[in-house]
Amino acid sequence: MSSTNRQIRLAARPQGMIDDSIWEVVDDAVREPGEGEVLVRNVCLSLDPAMRGWLNDVRSYVPPVGIGEVMRAGGVGEVVDSRDERFPAGEHVTGITGVQEYATVAGDGLRSVDLDVAPPERWLGALGMPGMTAYFGLLDVGQARDGDTVVISGAAGAVGSTAGQIAKLKGCRVIGIAGGPEKCAWLTEELGFDAAIDYKSADLRAALREHAPDRVDVYFDNVGGEVLDTVLLRIARGARIVICGAISQYNNEREMRGPANYMQLLVQRARMEGFVVFDYTSRYEEAAKAIGGWLADGSMVAQEHVVEGGVDAFPQTLVKLFTGENTGKLVLRLA
Amino acid sequence: MSSTNRQIRLAARPQGMIDDSIWEVVDDAVREPGEGEVLVRNVCLSLDPAMRGWLNDVRSYVPPVGIGEVMRAGGVGEVVDSRDERFPAGEHVTGITGVQEYATVAGDGLRSVDLDVAPPERWLGALGMPGMTAYFGLLDVGQARDGDTVVISGAAGAVGSTAGQIAKLKGCRVIGIAGGPEKCAWLTEELGFDAAIDYKSADLRAALREHAPDRVDVYFDNVGGEVLDTVLLRIARGARIVICGAISQYNNEREMRGPANYMQLLVQRARMEGFVVFDYTSRYEEAAKAIGGWLADGSMVAQEHVVEGGVDAFPQTLVKLFTGENTGKLVLRLA
Repeated sequence: MSSTNRQIRLAARPQGMIDDSIWEVVDDAVREPGEGEVLVRNVCLSLDPAMRGWLNDVRSYVPPVGIGEVMRAGGVGEVVDSRDERFPAGEHVTGITGVQEYATVAGDGLRSVDLDVAPPERWLGALGMPGMTAYFGLLDVGQARDGDTVVISGAAGAVGSTAGQIAKLKGCRVIGIAGGPEKCAWLTEELGFDAAIDYKSADLRAALREHAPDRVDVYFDNVGGEVLDTVLLRIARGARIVICGAISQYNNEREMRGPANYMQLLVQRARMEGFVVFDYTSRYEEAAKAIGGWLADGSMVAQEHVVEGGVDAFPQTLVKLFTGENTGKLVLRLA
Repeated sequence: MSSTNRQIRLAARPQGMIDDSIWEVVDDAVREPGEGEVLVRNVCLSLDPAMRGWLNDVRSYVPPVGIGEVMRAGGVGEVVDSRDERFPAGEHVTGITGVQEYATVAGDGLRSVDLDVAPPERWLGALGMPGMTAYFGLLDVGQARDGDTVVISGAAGAVGSTAGQIAKLKGCRVIGIAGGPEKCAWLTEELGFDAAIDYKSADLRAALREHAPDRVDVYFDNVGGEVLDTVLLRIARGARIVICGAISQYNNEREMRGPANYMQLLVQRARMEGFVVFDYTSRYEEAAKAIGGWLADGSMVAQEHVVEGGVDAFPQTLVKLFTGENTGKLVLRLA
C-alpha cells in the first residue's frame, strides 16, 4: 500500500460551466484510522449531476464543498485497515469516500457490498444512490401506478434509466427523453421503454402529443429548463411532477430558468414535489431488495459507463455528465 | 320587470392589461325560462381575478369566454320566474349568472341563499366561491395544521383574507403579504394576522426572515411572480405551496414568469400544488357550515368592497382587482 494519497480538492468556485481550473491535485499522507474509523482504498468513484450543486456556496440539502476540501463523492472501495469490527480488512464497502485514492472515514457512514452479487460500479448505480433515487422518486413521490403514463427526462442517465425500467415493471406506459439517437435507441430496444424522444432533434411538444395521447400522469424530471416547461403543457389531471434534478440549469451563469407554465399545476390540479434520497435511508433495504431481484432475474438492465484512470481523470470525466456523453451510470474506476 | 336585458359581452381578446375596448354593451331581450330553467334578476355580481384567465383563448379548467358571449360571472339574484320548483319566484339564488341584468339559467346550476343569514354580497365572498377556495386550499391542499407558519399573498383579497383568518382559527402563525399600509394595518388590526408585509415598500426577503423565523410551512399563493420566488427561498422542510392564483402575471403581455427558485422544492422536500375549487362541490356544505359558524360567533370578519352601478360599471370595476384597489371581496351591486 502506498503511503501517499492523491486527492482532488476544490480550488475555486466555478462560474458557469466547470473546467479544470477549479480543481487542484494534492498528494497528501494516508491517515491511519482512529477508533471507529475505517481506511478504504477507493476502487470506483461515482460521478453525479448533483456534484455541480455541491460546488456552489448556497444553502442546500448538504453543505457546499469547501475551498481546499477533498471533493465529495460516493465510492466503492476495499477496506485496508479498520478499527470498526463490522468492516474487516479485505472486505468491500460503499460510502462517501471522496475523490481520492484512500479515505479514512467513520464506519457509521459505510455499508458492506458483496462483489459476488454485482461488480463494484453497479453498487454506485442501480444498487446504489441512483437506484434508490429512481425507486423512491418514482414510486413514493411520483406515486406511479399501473396504467399511468410516465415521462422521464435524462432518461439515459443512471437515475432515469432505472426509473423507466421500474415504471415498466409496475405496468406504466413509459416515454424517455434523452439526447441523441443512440441513447433513444438504447431506451426502446434494450430497456423496453415504449417510446423515446430525442430532445435535440424532435419537436418535444408534438412528440409528447403522439407518444402520450392520454397526457402525462407522472413526470420524473432530471433536467429542468425548457423540457420541464414543455412537459407541463401535457400533464394530465392530478399529475405528479417529481423534481429530482435540473441538469440543464446547473452550469448556467445566469439565473435559473423557472417553469413559466407552472400554472398548469392549477389547471390540471397537479403537484410538483422535490425530494432528497437521503431521507429514505431507513427504506434502502426495500429498494435494494426489489432492484436486486429484478437484476437477478433479468427483468432489469443495469448499465454503467466506466472510465478508467487515476483520480487525476476526475475533472475531465465529470464534464461528460454535462455534455451528455454518458449512457447509464458514469463511474471512474481507479487504475 | 323590464323586457330588455342589458349585458356586457366580450368583443375582443385582450393583450396585456384589460381596458374598456374589449367589451361591448348589448341590450338583449329577456328570455323566458324553459322547462327546468329559472329567470333570475341579478342583484350582485362577483368580480374575480380568475376572470382575466377566462378571457384568454387557451385550454384551462373552464372554456374561455367566447367572442360575442356574455361575460361569465358568479352572481346573487332574485328569482322572477321559474320552471324549477326548487327555486320559486321571490327567493334568492346564487350561480353563474353572467354580467347582465337578467339570467335565464338551468336550475341545476343554482343554490338557494338566505338573506336573513347574510347580505347578498357575502354569498359571493366568505360564504361563496372565495370562502370555499380559501377553506379547501388552505386545509385540504395546504394541509395547514396547528403550529404551522402560514404565509398568504394577496392577503387583503377575498380569498386571502378568509384563508388567513381560517389559519389563525386553526392555530397557525399567519403572515399576510399585501400592497400598501392600509391593507396591512387592516390585516393585523382587524383580522388578527400576526404580521403583514407591504410588498410595495418592504424588502420581502428580510421581512419574511423577521416574521417567519422558523420558515414557512404553508404558502398560499394568489399572486405568483417575484413574490412567489422570494417566498420559495424561505420555505421550511416539507412545505406545501398552494397555487391558487397568479394575479401579478395575468395581464402580462410577455410570457409568464416562472418561479426560478423552484429547486428549493428539492432542497426542502416540499411540494407545489394547484387546485380548482369546483372539484370540492360535494364538500361545500362542510366549508359553508364552518365559515358560517365563525361569522356568526364573530371569530371571523367578512369584508366586501361593494361598488354600486349598472352592468355598464363592470369593465371599470374589474380593473380595480388588478390595480389593487379593493380590500376584501369586490362586488358590483346592480342599482
